[in-house]
Amino acid sequence: MQVTIAGLDGVPLVQPGDDVAGLIIDALERSRLVPQPKDILVVTQKIVSKAEGRYVDLASLDPSKKAVELAGVTRKDPSLVEAVLSQSTEVIRAKPGVLIVETRHGFVMANAGIDQSNLEMRDGSARILLLPEDPDHSARQIKQRIDARFSSDTGVIVSDSVGRAWRLGTVGLALGAAGVPALLDRRGEADLAGRRLEVTEVGFADAVAAAAVLVMGEAAEGRPAALVRGFEWSAPARPAAALLRPKAEDLFR
Amino acid sequence: MQVTIAGLDGVPLVQPGDDVAGLIIDALERSRLVPQPKDILVVTQKIVSKAEGRYVDLASLDPSKKAVELAGVTRKDPSLVEAVLSQSTEVIRAKPGVLIVETRHGFVMANAGIDQSNLEMRDGSARILLLPEDPDHSARQIKQRIDARFSSDTGVIVSDSVGRAWRLGTVGLALGAAGVPALLDRRGEADLAGRRLEVTEVGFADAVAAAAVLVMGEAAEGRPAALVRGFEWSAPARPAAALLRPKAEDLFR
Repeated sequence: MQVTIAGLDGVPLVQPGDDVAGLIIDALERSRLVPQPKDILVVTQKIVSKAEGRYVDLASLDPSKKAVELAGVTRKDPSLVEAVLSQSTEVIRAKPGVLIVETRHGFVMANAGIDQSNLEMRDGSARILLLPEDPDHSARQIKQRIDARFSSDTGVIVSDSVGRAWRLGTVGLALGAAGVPALLDRRGEADLAGRRLEVTEVGFADAVAAAAVLVMGEAAEGRPAALVRGFEWSAPARPAAALLRPKAEDLFR
Repeated sequence: MQVTIAGLDGVPLVQPGDDVAGLIIDALERSRLVPQPKDILVVTQKIVSKAEGRYVDLASLDPSKKAVELAGVTRKDPSLVEAVLSQSTEVIRAKPGVLIVETRHGFVMANAGIDQSNLEMRDGSARILLLPEDPDHSARQIKQRIDARFSSDTGVIVSDSVGRAWRLGTVGLALGAAGVPALLDRRGEADLAGRRLEVTEVGFADAVAAAAVLVMGEAAEGRPAALVRGFEWSAPARPAAALLRPKAEDLFR
């Protein structure tokens, strides 16, 4: 079994309202990459969010009392904290330099996944970029366009890079997914000794995203998508929302 | 940029005392896979632990009072809990069905990473398999052998599959690494807008392991290694120990 991950060059800088699927299709065609069934296109959330116009001008926000308090605790900009809170259902941890929340999507992330880097400045104003409103939906929309253009059944993952509780360094994961079993359930299968496997739910889309994000590189390199080829599966597609651990099972909040 | 991940077939079941590097070299040669500089060989901890004889017969253990108490809380076998405690420096969470510890290596993991599946049974006795004593050292040893045989400078990662606090499904990560920048530091570089990147420590070895573990598949398929080709880096090699978040920065214990 061999898997290839090809970084997709030639996607231009994305602006609000851009047709991100169309830009990716153009780049695929220019790169002579033709998606096949069971290929997986990984797209960074950054260009999805940009196309969806998820910018916020920090100056436009009026920080609440709670945001000002948390800004004191975390030593962050009160307007940024206001933006984080607007995207969150719960503050998980707050201390100097750190604000970890559960986002409205259910992701436990620093700063609600808000991106403060790589944003083209207009007249010095500070814009931030929120996560896509519904990354699984974004993935489905891109998948429909890819499949229509290439007559394929191509998986799509919307990726992000996140920190971890007990490990240094960011790794990619799947915020959204379509056409892939984001969570792959292998419970009940037997191992080599005929014993039933106990823990075999596999974070498939997260692991695919982790590798693809490495190939895409940091955004500085301007390669916001990658095509992954060679994985096989028979399990039904499940969205990235299936990867969220239910709150009742969460031991760390 | 294109990365390929080739699963390595033909590695036999490993027994204590086996020369795991030699078995991998044989399998690489039979597969006509010749490691090149900057290739990364990912090897599952399971065969490394087996070769290192990290088996424990549960019946040989005499559970301490603390182990018996924790077995009550977690509803686990007191002997298994004894084994977990023997490999741990701290119990992080214990509740029915769950025992999360910090291992002597510094990994925060369920059951100290002890493997209860895929262990060939002898006369019905229950054996478990501990993690390698020093996975970075194991990786270095394998690297030396691979490099000597193929005149290469090949990275080696010793991988495992672990659960996550807020996500369902296991993903691969790097327990040990040699010849790769396990943690890749890109702080200080500029983004497209000329802004300094704030968070750019990348969990390189973890992300490589995540994808390789998918290609290796579950152990049931008997493919315990994969060769990853196509990544470029100029950063110095760092062991997987560099990926451990210092306890003082840990917000979740």
